[in-house]
Amino acid sequence: MPVPAATSTDAPPRLVESIGYSVTAGGKRLRPALVLECAIACGSDASNKSAMASAAAIELIHTFSLVHDDLPAMDDDELRRGRPTNHKVFGEAMAILAGDAMVTLAFETIAVDADPKLVPALVKELAAASGPAGMIGGQVLDIDGENQNLALPQLQRIHRMKTGALLTASCRLGAIAAGASESQLAAITMYGRNVGLAFQIVDDVLDVTSTPQQLGKATNKDADSGKNTYPGLIGLDASRAAAREAVDAAVAALSDFGSAADGLRAAARFVVARQF
Amino acid sequence: MPVPAATSTDAPPRLVESIGYSVTAGGKRLRPALVLECAIACGSDASNKSAMASAAAIELIHTFSLVHDDLPAMDDDELRRGRPTNHKVFGEAMAILAGDAMVTLAFETIAVDADPKLVPALVKELAAASGPAGMIGGQVLDIDGENQNLALPQLQRIHRMKTGALLTASCRLGAIAAGASESQLAAITMYGRNVGLAFQIVDDVLDVTSTPQQLGKATNKDADSGKNTYPGLIGLDASRAAAREAVDAAVAALSDFGSAADGLRAAARFVVARQF
Repeated sequence: MPVPAATSTDAPPRLVESIGYSVTAGGKRLRPALVLECAIACGSDASNKSAMASAAAIELIHTFSLVHDDLPAMDDDELRRGRPTNHKVFGEAMAILAGDAMVTLAFETIAVDADPKLVPALVKELAAASGPAGMIGGQVLDIDGENQNLALPQLQRIHRMKTGALLTASCRLGAIAAGASESQLAAITMYGRNVGLAFQIVDDVLDVTSTPQQLGKATNKDADSGKNTYPGLIGLDASRAAAREAVDAAVAALSDFGSAADGLRAAARFVVARQF
Repeated sequence: MPVPAATSTDAPPRLVESIGYSVTAGGKRLRPALVLECAIACGSDASNKSAMASAAAIELIHTFSLVHDDLPAMDDDELRRGRPTNHKVFGEAMAILAGDAMVTLAFETIAVDADPKLVPALVKELAAASGPAGMIGGQVLDIDGENQNLALPQLQRIHRMKTGALLTASCRLGAIAAGASESQLAAITMYGRNVGLAFQIVDDVLDVTSTPQQLGKATNKDADSGKNTYPGLIGLDASRAAAREAVDAAVAALSDFGSAADGLRAAARFVVARQF
């Protein structure tokens, strides 16, 4: 008996809807913006197909992490980007599967749309930043650290993995897509690490100082759930100073880049400017 | 302040343990065997590094799907491969994250270890077979179909996506790794689809006719949870006949291959031979 091939029309409409619900929910789009700006800083232009594919892929990975982190078994959140979380609308099983599908779609996008010569480096970069030594590992440490008193180096490790790895990868993907030199890639990496650090400190600060309406998600969540934060460990003023120091270091890393990196400089400033 | 890079030593030991628990739990290793046997059938040898990477990657994807399918929000299983399921040992949050990590590790393995020229095709093949139009989409349809009376074509669609897509991809990955010709790839694809069909029918039959000790997981699970199966729709005898017909079609697809495909012929016979 003939067995037909699977086709893209086989994708269940409700699954496609669940994926679309979270992917189109808005958000700052910081990671894809960093991909494209880093490509531009390294001499490419906005039409670079490898940068476009990487930008889409990293937003899919980021959104997958939000959908899974919000699950009842994890952070148990009901609000995300101002809307009910995915599992509140589609149920837990669908939210798990929609998140899973975003990961496969991310890698498929790079494999299909990026320059074939760059695909190995791009896939490796994205996978390593997302995996056990990156974002997913950071989420494990974050959950393990709840209701424990962490020292600053432990908190910094969680931040570096959970948020920093993917932000740094966003920058590196853009540089790789542009065919950056080794020294360009090193500078972009230093920029990305410092922007990632500043971003997470600001996130911690905003959780303390904002309303749910401003953030589009629950606030004071970290203190309520016993999570360790920068303000909790070193206070609000020192946290703000540390964020500004990281932004300065990020901008300083771009000293050898000309005006093509102005977008990246503005992005670094934006990280500490939002409601800070 | 200097921000260090993430390194593989950052991976949390408990996460690594959770991944290892499921990946090393045994199982038939049918999918990696199909990758390697298809590479050999297409003229390669067992040391082909792209086939080895693909074999590891597809077992990671398969294992991820088992860990997530067993979750309380999905099939809620307590036993897998004769051992407690991952979430029973490590908790739900860790099981979700370990499954997620297996997906990123699968793609990282191909990106790092396969022939760079073949990486785009291998990643595309694996991602498409795993995603919304393949395995993950099939799991959505399977859950949706519980406690509904499905017609045979609907059941076949679920099988084709949930199990068939990844089994077919196993075969195609091996062929691609071996640099197969178009006609070889078409024959291998036809072989894979028919083996996949036979495999799922046999799985349905075994669920009815085996003990939990024989299968290493709960039996009569499908009928209990209102799932549709081949025996339920067309009876045990017709199911066995359909499985044998699919195996014959799989073997027939290999008619242009010589003795290098003997392993594949044996694998097809093995599918219907196990406790059947």
